[in-house]
Amino acid sequence: MNNLRNKVIAAPYPQKLNRLFSEEKIHMISSLADFVYLGDEKIAGDEIDKHLPDAIAVIGQMEMLESRLRLAPGLRAIFNVEGNFYQNIDYDYCFNNGIYVLNCGEAYALAVAEMALGFAIDLGRGIAREDRRVRSGNEKYLAEGCLDSVLLSGSDVGIIGFGFLGKALTRLLVPFRCRVRVYDPWVPDSIIIEHGCIPTTLGDVLEKSRFVFVMAGVTKNNRGFLSAEKLSLIKKDSFFILMSRAAVVDFDALCSLTEEGRFTAATDVFPEEPIPRNHRIRKNENILLSPHRAGGIPQAFARIGKMVIDDLSLILRGLPPLRMQIAMRETVKNLISKPAG
Amino acid sequence: MNNLRNKVIAAPYPQKLNRLFSEEKIHMISSLADFVYLGDEKIAGDEIDKHLPDAIAVIGQMEMLESRLRLAPGLRAIFNVEGNFYQNIDYDYCFNNGIYVLNCGEAYALAVAEMALGFAIDLGRGIAREDRRVRSGNEKYLAEGCLDSVLLSGSDVGIIGFGFLGKALTRLLVPFRCRVRVYDPWVPDSIIIEHGCIPTTLGDVLEKSRFVFVMAGVTKNNRGFLSAEKLSLIKKDSFFILMSRAAVVDFDALCSLTEEGRFTAATDVFPEEPIPRNHRIRKNENILLSPHRAGGIPQAFARIGKMVIDDLSLILRGLPPLRMQIAMRETVKNLISKPAG
Amino acid sequence: MNNLRNKVIAAPYPQKLNRLFSEEKIHMISSLADFVYLGDEKIAGDEIDKHLPDAIAVIGQMEMLESRLRLAPGLRAIFNVEGNFYQNIDYDYCFNNGIYVLNCGEAYALAVAEMALGFAIDLGRGIAREDRRVRSGNEKYLAEGCLDSVLLSGSDVGIIGFGFLGKALTRLLVPFRCRVRVYDPWVPDSIIIEHGCIPTTLGDVLEKSRFVFVMAGVTKNNRGFLSAEKLSLIKKDSFFILMSRAAVVDFDALCSLTEEGRFTAATDVFPEEPIPRNHRIRKNENILLSPHRAGGIPQAFARIGKMVIDDLSLILRGLPPLRMQIAMRETVKNLISKPAG
Amino acid sequence: MNNLRNKVIAAPYPQKLNRLFSEEKIHMISSLADFVYLGDEKIAGDEIDKHLPDAIAVIGQMEMLESRLRLAPGLRAIFNVEGNFYQNIDYDYCFNNGIYVLNCGEAYALAVAEMALGFAIDLGRGIAREDRRVRSGNEKYLAEGCLDSVLLSGSDVGIIGFGFLGKALTRLLVPFRCRVRVYDPWVPDSIIIEHGCIPTTLGDVLEKSRFVFVMAGVTKNNRGFLSAEKLSLIKKDSFFILMSRAAVVDFDALCSLTEEGRFTAATDVFPEEPIPRNHRIRKNENILLSPHRAGGIPQAFARIGKMVIDDLSLILRGLPPLRMQIAMRETVKNLISKPAG
Repeated sequence: MNNLRNKVIAAPYPQKLNRLFSEEKIHMISSLADFVYLGDEKIAGDEIDKHLPDAIAVIGQMEMLESRLRLAPGLRAIFNVEGNFYQNIDYDYCFNNGIYVLNCGEAYALAVAEMALGFAIDLGRGIAREDRRVRSGNEKYLAEGCLDSVLLSGSDVGIIGFGFLGKALTRLLVPFRCRVRVYDPWVPDSIIIEHGCIPTTLGDVLEKSRFVFVMAGVTKNNRGFLSAEKLSLIKKDSFFILMSRAAVVDFDALCSLTEEGRFTAATDVFPEEPIPRNHRIRKNENILLSPHRAGGIPQAFARIGKMVIDDLSLILRGLPPLRMQIAMRETVKNLISKPAG
Repeated sequence: MNNLRNKVIAAPYPQKLNRLFSEEKIHMISSLADFVYLGDEKIAGDEIDKHLPDAIAVIGQMEMLESRLRLAPGLRAIFNVEGNFYQNIDYDYCFNNGIYVLNCGEAYALAVAEMALGFAIDLGRGIAREDRRVRSGNEKYLAEGCLDSVLLSGSDVGIIGFGFLGKALTRLLVPFRCRVRVYDPWVPDSIIIEHGCIPTTLGDVLEKSRFVFVMAGVTKNNRGFLSAEKLSLIKKDSFFILMSRAAVVDFDALCSLTEEGRFTAATDVFPEEPIPRNHRIRKNENILLSPHRAGGIPQAFARIGKMVIDDLSLILRGLPPLRMQIAMRETVKNLISKPAG
Repeated sequence: MNNLRNKVIAAPYPQKLNRLFSEEKIHMISSLADFVYLGDEKIAGDEIDKHLPDAIAVIGQMEMLESRLRLAPGLRAIFNVEGNFYQNIDYDYCFNNGIYVLNCGEAYALAVAEMALGFAIDLGRGIAREDRRVRSGNEKYLAEGCLDSVLLSGSDVGIIGFGFLGKALTRLLVPFRCRVRVYDPWVPDSIIIEHGCIPTTLGDVLEKSRFVFVMAGVTKNNRGFLSAEKLSLIKKDSFFILMSRAAVVDFDALCSLTEEGRFTAATDVFPEEPIPRNHRIRKNENILLSPHRAGGIPQAFARIGKMVIDDLSLILRGLPPLRMQIAMRETVKNLISKPAG
Repeated sequence: MNNLRNKVIAAPYPQKLNRLFSEEKIHMISSLADFVYLGDEKIAGDEIDKHLPDAIAVIGQMEMLESRLRLAPGLRAIFNVEGNFYQNIDYDYCFNNGIYVLNCGEAYALAVAEMALGFAIDLGRGIAREDRRVRSGNEKYLAEGCLDSVLLSGSDVGIIGFGFLGKALTRLLVPFRCRVRVYDPWVPDSIIIEHGCIPTTLGDVLEKSRFVFVMAGVTKNNRGFLSAEKLSLIKKDSFFILMSRAAVVDFDALCSLTEEGRFTAATDVFPEEPIPRNHRIRKNENILLSPHRAGGIPQAFARIGKMVIDDLSLILRGLPPLRMQIAMRETVKNLISKPAG
């Protein structure tokens, strides 16, 4: 099988190979092509360069500028095994030479969506707060302890950002029969409607929702769009759930509004991580605090591995990838996420 | 409208009338029949007795033995506005004289099911535990903090008890595509299968499930059936979620097994409530603690009111009730729940 | 097991025993009680009477007036293995003596609902009509042949009658995301809403729906309620699907309105069956004709058998039935269906 | 708005502009760009060539070879408003110059899926066949007429081809709770599994399914893959539903096997359309005949218009298209569908 002349090069730093691929999966790749694993450490350029002339695919997020890409005339795909596209690739070269640049953002979507749902129920019912109260001995029981409890079922829900994360959340929300309003300026209304949701403005989402989920990517243009002014549109006693990204929110305003009891919140992301030791948010009883734990769970990493193998198999068979996200000319250069490592 | 000759008597203690019925709903009842409200306090027998000769329905859970029932030849229904049937009614008299005894257990089902789902996601992802860690300054971030996180999606789920609560939970679980095993000796397999679940034994549920939900009523015969021995069947690192009732579990064993780290748990019920000040469970880091807050939320009480009015309307029109649970000859005398008040 | 002293008597005429129960199922009953099968033919009273003193349950729809019921002091249930309750039972005696009278109407619901859905798609797309045209050589192709084709998805649907049949239909309609309006004066709005439908008036259903499904039982009071006047409310070019019962519709008006091309229709029921040889409906190109074939399919009969065994098992264990429909004091005497045989 | 300098050129032949776009939609396009409509007739090359220097998008399926594409340096998208990609475009030029070639195959998917479901229920219950029998006066009633009727619910279903059509069908099948086996050599198993289906071989699908749906595109390589031999794997008394494409089936074998009563079938496509006057299939009582009417319904055409506008809006805003199917380097040249006109 002449595919074996093709090399698939893995240099997954800061990911780890065995977090993505089981032994069995690595065997599967090895049976499809010549698998070259350069280790989990950060590598020097010449380590990879020598393999590029025979490479059909690269797994990892190392720098791939034009000079390096030119070494790889048979390259068909760069599998970025993280959830974002970074600005260390010559995308134009790739687009013009039929090289797919792929990321695996969708692999985290279900994990984040479940976590977001868990946060929403937690806030609506005061679960973690009341758990803390039992531990300090001042809990309330039965109806007396539930005066501010509300159902998610049948409520007004808002979703800000309708990419993989937002869509995954709508699937989990189906049995709750909520009215789900969605704001995403990058997505046609028709797609939002097909997911059973109502496309609307940011103001409308903030003003009308009892549960507001933020699941937006960050670009050059949308930093801080959830400003203090916007946040103040949120209804009293609503629930604000921030899954992605800290940079789209005026975080100080979020801290203040929740301290004042305007609404309660949960957040998985913070402008600075680790959170500074003395950050006032650590004492805020009205925010559920989660140290960036929504996406990176073992099952998500295993899913990345499966997605890579699925698309690698397709590419080795001369077919286009179907599972990972393909970098697009128009948008890839606007993205400003930095590598997690 | 000659229904107005009929009295509907409300003595809802320990419930409260305005927790169940809005002003508008009370108007609605008043338009259908002669509505006699005896207050929210516990009442003496003679207060109600004088109205019984004209009564078509009673709302409340006062004692209704044969001598009292004989005063009410036109009585068609007793609306117990709590979730259980109590042993303070002459049920045989009711069955033989066409008097429905009704309860509203189903009104709590959605609230309990949402809470159970919230507990499950909390345990699977360590939400409340990690929130506590952030507050004490020893949290972990990203993959390092998620090593033991698991998805509910696609997991093996067990449900013990398949009444209103268990069924409501299955509806919320649909998008998670779990394998759901159910144990309920009172329910035909066919009903479990129609809900998309797998009927099986108690042992099978305990041994094979990653998430075990206990949503069982307590009867004369099933006290403590989740014994230490049974609990020890639960898989290492599984999640045990106890929604109903504390009496079906060997609670000391539950405390010990979780202290030892065999599995983690969440519980909304306790053998003694309030939990004694110095009960060891207050320090157990492996149990999520919720002081009986799953069912009695304002929306559940409002739902009771709606169910009562729906069925009262049907009864006043000469039709059978459709919304509340009808006491049945075979089972009502086995139930041993005590009034919440 | 002392249940074996109890007799379960089967005289299923006009049903047939082996249409309901596999050999295995009969074995199962025989293991639970003393099974007495009196044959599929119509039986004389004394054949059954001699077994009644030991009977715990009867399977069949023979006459059970007070004199006969008095012979059976241990009788707990009469399993009517058809879809209706007939007026050949002393229901009051049964109610006052703790005897369940049960029917299996729900067993047909899925078969009828699938057929109704099939009819709706057939009408919306002209499937059977165009099949006839191909056979006579005057078909049209592609867009030209589809000018009047409409999707069921996203359409306005009306359901008249919200018993087992209507509810089963709503479950199949879920992925079509229709607006479903329901008219049923016997069912509280809340139940309709819980099924994701909109409760409304008969006129509203007829005027606003593109697809109208009639799935109503017939009682002493609702004969012909879909009068010529009501039928004329149906929108031009809508689709009228009559599943149950012919007697609720002015059938002549239905024939005329469809002949005139006001709307198209499908019907599974007819005022006279077999349809008279020369009935004008046989030539009506705007009605899809189905000779009462929606419910009585082999899988429905097998389902009856399973429901009987499920509830018989519960009753023999001292529990109430859960699967079959229980006759209720208020309504059973209003029903006027006649036995199918 | 400088987009108005950009021309959007429409030459939709053999489609028709007003079948795709309402007046309102055309206004919408006109407000976004300079809309040039060249009529619904087939046009000569020079009519379009003169507009190409300013064109940002072309709507239609005219020939676009390199010489013509070079006239349009600002061209970003060619909206093929049919369901297929044709070999009259220089795809390599488009790929290398950032021009999207888009088709609207997905617009037909829901219409085809509903029709396929209608066919399946029709076959399972003999709807059109029995309608014909009533018209010729030899129908059967009730159970006697239903001996071969089967439910779709709970059955074994097979889908051959898992593109837009197959996926749309799976959504409609959800409430039927079937075991759905899927064969598609171009789609990773993981995608099939995510749709709740079982990936398997062609033989397995044919041998194990009661209902077999064929919803496959035709390529250079898969002509006639459902050979006589493969068709003979279909279980006796199963149902074979052919939605797309006639060329993948040995049609003579299909006619013969159904004539012999091996299984029954429905087909929307034929190797020659119109079907020859004397083709034996016109007399085949075991095939439901539909003259290519599944996809091209008015609502599908309206959907095409909406998809075009959605993606055109995105492209004019500098974003990638999200709704239409993007031609891919690897596959577009294998497709051999010819324009419907």
